[in-house]
Amino acid sequence: MNGIAYSSRRFMFSAGHRYWVEAWPAAQNEKFFGRLTVPHGHNYVLEVTVRGPIDPQTGMVINLTDLKEIVNDAVVERFDHADLNADPLFRGRVPTTENIAVTVWGLLVPKLGAERLWQVRVWEDDTLYVDYRGEEHA
Amino acid sequence: MNGIAYSSRRFMFSAGHRYWVEAWPAAQNEKFFGRLTVPHGHNYVLEVTVRGPIDPQTGMVINLTDLKEIVNDAVVERFDHADLNADPLFRGRVPTTENIAVTVWGLLVPKLGAERLWQVRVWEDDTLYVDYRGEEHA
Amino acid sequence: MNGIAYSSRRFMFSAGHRYWVEAWPAAQNEKFFGRLTVPHGHNYVLEVTVRGPIDPQTGMVINLTDLKEIVNDAVVERFDHADLNADPLFRGRVPTTENIAVTVWGLLVPKLGAERLWQVRVWEDDTLYVDYRGEEHA
Amino acid sequence: MNGIAYSSRRFMFSAGHRYWVEAWPAAQNEKFFGRLTVPHGHNYVLEVTVRGPIDPQTGMVINLTDLKEIVNDAVVERFDHADLNADPLFRGRVPTTENIAVTVWGLLVPKLGAERLWQVRVWEDDTLYVDYRGEEHA
Amino acid sequence: MNGIAYSSRRFMFSAGHRYWVEAWPAAQNEKFFGRLTVPHGHNYVLEVTVRGPIDPQTGMVINLTDLKEIVNDAVVERFDHADLNADPLFRGRVPTTENIAVTVWGLLVPKLGAERLWQVRVWEDDTLYVDYRGEEHA
Amino acid sequence: MNGIAYSSRRFMFSAGHRYWVEAWPAAQNEKFFGRLTVPHGHNYVLEVTVRGPIDPQTGMVINLTDLKEIVNDAVVERFDHADLNADPLFRGRVPTTENIAVTVWGLLVPKLGAERLWQVRVWEDDTLYVDYRGEEHA
Repeated sequence: MNGIAYSSRRFMFSAGHRYWVEAWPAAQNEKFFGRLTVPHGHNYVLEVTVRGPIDPQTGMVINLTDLKEIVNDAVVERFDHADLNADPLFRGRVPTTENIAVTVWGLLVPKLGAERLWQVRVWEDDTLYVDYRGEEHA
Repeated sequence: MNGIAYSSRRFMFSAGHRYWVEAWPAAQNEKFFGRLTVPHGHNYVLEVTVRGPIDPQTGMVINLTDLKEIVNDAVVERFDHADLNADPLFRGRVPTTENIAVTVWGLLVPKLGAERLWQVRVWEDDTLYVDYRGEEHA
Repeated sequence: MNGIAYSSRRFMFSAGHRYWVEAWPAAQNEKFFGRLTVPHGHNYVLEVTVRGPIDPQTGMVINLTDLKEIVNDAVVERFDHADLNADPLFRGRVPTTENIAVTVWGLLVPKLGAERLWQVRVWEDDTLYVDYRGEEHA
Repeated sequence: MNGIAYSSRRFMFSAGHRYWVEAWPAAQNEKFFGRLTVPHGHNYVLEVTVRGPIDPQTGMVINLTDLKEIVNDAVVERFDHADLNADPLFRGRVPTTENIAVTVWGLLVPKLGAERLWQVRVWEDDTLYVDYRGEEHA
Repeated sequence: MNGIAYSSRRFMFSAGHRYWVEAWPAAQNEKFFGRLTVPHGHNYVLEVTVRGPIDPQTGMVINLTDLKEIVNDAVVERFDHADLNADPLFRGRVPTTENIAVTVWGLLVPKLGAERLWQVRVWEDDTLYVDYRGEEHA
Repeated sequence: MNGIAYSSRRFMFSAGHRYWVEAWPAAQNEKFFGRLTVPHGHNYVLEVTVRGPIDPQTGMVINLTDLKEIVNDAVVERFDHADLNADPLFRGRVPTTENIAVTVWGLLVPKLGAERLWQVRVWEDDTLYVDYRGEEHA
């Protein structure tokens, strides 16, 4: 018997984006999104939380060096100094903070397993963050 | 089918308050609350979390410009540069961080709906915060 | 009937530690933990969350002066400016962030009660934190 | 021969205040200061910088335990959980961040000496700070 | 006779940019700037410092509401949710943090006066900032 | 003619240390330094500031990739996950924040040049930092 803990690691990436729904005419985009239609960007902060039993010998839920490598390879390397709208993962999807969180989840689940990946939190700036835990709406 | 996410936005307001239970004699207030009985104040940070499905077209749980307007109108405009003890909402209630969180919840539920408003977090300063999620005690 | 809230307080302590599994030969420790085997240290941030009904008179879940005293006496006084590996609580246990969180939980449960202590969060630095909520693995 | 360094320590105090020039009629105060005339408050952060040679034996510009005690006694104890407008030091002086910085300087110079006290920085909140270095205008 | 203080206010804007020297062939740009050539962006933090005597009546170096309006009008409104490379101010100039600081200085000097504007600090992210104080190199 | 700016980059390293003057008997060390004599540690934050003219073509005071490499090689690689008291640079010198700042300066001057290195700031934790600018006391 041993404890179950939630280990979280933070990452940073600076990316560019703009809000634009392809299916809408320009006027509708500008009315709905305003200046978010102009290419700009953010220093995104990503928090990845892994849940699991603490290994009785190493005292770890996951080796954080491994976690760091996995997230850097799958996410940071891809999105840091990138234009999100140009990434195929955002083809036809507005790169909102919500969609970025879901996308990061999708990139990490195959590496970490759905039973270990607990939450992805994405901060767009100090005033806004989104959590995604793999929940789906019927 | 689409994902359910939790979108949070942070707000700031600077307010004054003091701790004082009207039903207690002065000596009891001073003994229990100490220097908290003296009028002082804080830079409160408020985090409002909305839960819901991500709109497949806009990629949003809620339009954050709308959320910003709702919280600014209902809460920030009212409590920023205000004396909380003078607000009718705190008549007979000590303006503790707990009570502020419950009060903000009460102001936001009619605007956002109980099924969307997920959590209100209030930071009194960098060392203290309270979460309220609408739970009631029997 | 009154609301249930979660009150959290943050604490800081600076401690030294190194990662080393006694049961392993030196080479295995060095291979697995790398430079974590060298004595170093951190400014740990500890967040203690207490859950409970808000007292209708004082407006508090717990008197934060009491909480501050309890955590300072039981945890901060013990771990601040201490060498964690030298503490009997970490005899035979690597002082990882996970194990520190579980250990702090164990120190606080007798003082606060398992029904009130909701979560212990330990930050090792700005990029890494662990949550423990008393869950046990079968 | 040894190096000269600048050692800074941060302190926090929560105080109440309002802006009001006694010599002005109410209407002028309200016009000029707006909602700043309402009693509110802040979590002030104070940074005190001491300049001097590094002691070759202790490696210190000043014993930080001493500095902590001096500032706590002279400033924090006085202004934490206090109503600044009620303090005689602000009689006839609006408790702006500028005036708070000058006032803290005046409280610390007799204890630290003008040749060692280098700068007082006062943050009103995360968006505003004032530095004072003892300079006077002819 | 009255004190001279330095009042600083922080602002935030999210902008997009890329590094590219027009006079260089693509290969040289890519070699020198690497992934900085890809359109990305940041949450810039701007700190504007004004120096001057404290007004003996209002206790202010500058009315911060005025300063806020001046910087918002001249800088934030222009650069927030903008593509810096598309701004004429960066025609033929790489929008580095250094050049952004100099450019903000140039926008603010006509409004605040060179004798009052003391420093412009621009943070690109939490790990990098540039200060400009109007100094010119012969 | 072109502007002169100050570019600063932040680094982090976690190190262990204790305060102990070899020339003093144990009792004197314990009396003077108290619990600082126990091996503990910190997440140090290092800010390195370089001053110079902005290159008219690249818009940079210094290529930040180069600066990052220089500081990582000379300082972070050496002090991260290290026991400062075991480093020859602190033989006979207490590893105070002041002495760490002077030591970092000494490691960087040969790489950056005294005319470009402007300031080294070392944060021991969020409440304490020391600046060193190469000044010597007669």
